[in-house]
Amino acid sequence: MTAAAKPYHHGDLRAALVAEGLLLIEEQDADDLSLRELARRVGVSATAVYRHFPDKAALMAALAGEALTRLAAAQRAASERAGGGSAGFSATGAAYVRFARDNPGLFRLVFAHPVTPGHAEKSNDEAMTMLKAGAAALTPPGTDARVFALRSWALAHGLAMLMLDGQVQVDDATIDRVIDVTMSG
Amino acid sequence: MTAAAKPYHHGDLRAALVAEGLLLIEEQDADDLSLRELARRVGVSATAVYRHFPDKAALMAALAGEALTRLAAAQRAASERAGGGSAGFSATGAAYVRFARDNPGLFRLVFAHPVTPGHAEKSNDEAMTMLKAGAAALTPPGTDARVFALRSWALAHGLAMLMLDGQVQVDDATIDRVIDVTMSG
Repeated sequence: MTAAAKPYHHGDLRAALVAEGLLLIEEQDADDLSLRELARRVGVSATAVYRHFPDKAALMAALAGEALTRLAAAQRAASERAGGGSAGFSATGAAYVRFARDNPGLFRLVFAHPVTPGHAEKSNDEAMTMLKAGAAALTPPGTDARVFALRSWALAHGLAMLMLDGQVQVDDATIDRVIDVTMSG
Repeated sequence: MTAAAKPYHHGDLRAALVAEGLLLIEEQDADDLSLRELARRVGVSATAVYRHFPDKAALMAALAGEALTRLAAAQRAASERAGGGSAGFSATGAAYVRFARDNPGLFRLVFAHPVTPGHAEKSNDEAMTMLKAGAAALTPPGTDARVFALRSWALAHGLAMLMLDGQVQVDDATIDRVIDVTMSG
């Protein structure tokens, strides 16, 4: 059986392509990732890949969507573990930093890699939904809710990027202490 | 007179190369910048460039050094305008964000672009000096000084990167409100 003839049901192949794409994006720069290479790794023809992802942007959008789903799940779980409220909101920030540390390629794809405007908008929408919900409830008196949300995002995003770009080395306990939106120490 | 014969005194040529390098780094990705292109732009031979910068890493280090000098000057000026103290420290953070916005190529070169360990160390040292000095004096009671310094840096860095990567659009007044290390609103 040739690679191109490997039997995949339509939905299964899409899932397999996304799964392999998630691995590939951690192995190499998104710029270098090609649909052809993805086809080779999954063992199907390029034509079979194009049926699911007509171009690279379509694949990147699918990977970004999967990344946001996973990030949101990690943030929800962290918030619940922390018991919600202010501690839960800080925990969602720390979960954002840990997601970046553990999935640098995916994180850059969603939040740092230059993307098409449409794609960026989607990312912003989804990433900001939980943030705004948490921020709105926790914004200190006298502070603009948008400013508070932006400050919280900037804090987590900045620590994530400083870590990914090798500017600082931060252990798990320090992540929690830095990403304390209540700023109580 | 051929380009290669253009007369430069030794020190003047170095300054001209750095000045042109600062322009080039805003025009294109640092990865694509070459000493050969720099030579062509300044109108000297590649050999003349190599006399000052034996390789690209040497040029990048010189540009990063110049960037840090300019950033420090902008931060000092902003702190003085704000009257020092807590407001002055917040102003240095806002100046960091504005420097990133106005010099994205240089900013990425220093803080975001993957660099050699030695270079990164130098960047960290210089960038962190003013931050640590300001942070030490302003760290709230019960907060670890390193955590406070890191939080302040992460906040400014995060807003800068979100702006540079097109995730948020933030006007000047909002920069000041987000980068308020006293978090008083």
